[in-house]
Amino acid sequence: MEEKWSGKLYLVATPIGNLDDITLRALNVLKNVDLIAAEDTRHTLGLLNHFEIKKPLISYYKETEKKRSPELIEKLLEGQNIAIVSDAGTPGISDPGEEIVKMAIENNIEIIPIPGACAFVNALIGSRNEHKRV
Amino acid sequence: MEEKWSGKLYLVATPIGNLDDITLRALNVLKNVDLIAAEDTRHTLGLLNHFEIKKPLISYYKETEKKRSPELIEKLLEGQNIAIVSDAGTPGISDPGEEIVKMAIENNIEIIPIPGACAFVNALIGSRNEHKRV
Repeated sequence: MEEKWSGKLYLVATPIGNLDDITLRALNVLKNVDLIAAEDTRHTLGLLNHFEIKKPLISYYKETEKKRSPELIEKLLEGQNIAIVSDAGTPGISDPGEEIVKMAIENNIEIIPIPGACAFVNALIGSRNEHKRV
Repeated sequence: MEEKWSGKLYLVATPIGNLDDITLRALNVLKNVDLIAAEDTRHTLGLLNHFEIKKPLISYYKETEKKRSPELIEKLLEGQNIAIVSDAGTPGISDPGEEIVKMAIENNIEIIPIPGACAFVNALIGSRNEHKRV
């Protein structure tokens, strides 16, 4: 994350439910980026506080992503590293992120997905266990 | 994990590629179970060594799962907690695990999926970045 040219855009998966469902790499990225763009800053602040991470937060959600994305791209081009997080799970699937990913590609900015929990995979596995719970 | 009756069966997602793509909860489970059933014990040993986890390993893969599953169920019924891991990603999707999950349900054993990286989700997000790499 020490590059002198353009920064990197990290799409960071965050926990669904259990806060410990976050990967070591996700924590490391959140600790080291310059800025975190979050679907709901209050929600993400809860996560950051839990892991004692202090980082500037900017709100980034479906209704603002067209407006916010150019601002974030500008920061990336200035060399800032930015993480995008949704409320839970993997951004860019059903959550905001698509717009900035498209613009980042156009601007030749490196995009790094940080994998983690994803709701539908969990639902899929859990479903086998379903009739036990009923 | 202190239950005196039957043990729990954990389906633990493990990293695909980057070893730090493992969650805090997955590490905690691997540290605390009695036994880890692994698709490839040598592969999993690499992961465990990296995180300094020492744990009995048993091999459990597609060709042996019909034979191994009753043995594992017996241990679970005796109160042992067991984690199933595949080489990479989430067990029970394209990896072994289905057989023991079915038997665990029949035996009323609790099954706990520990979410983490899953290859196809990563592929999906990464695909948007694809033409940049070409």
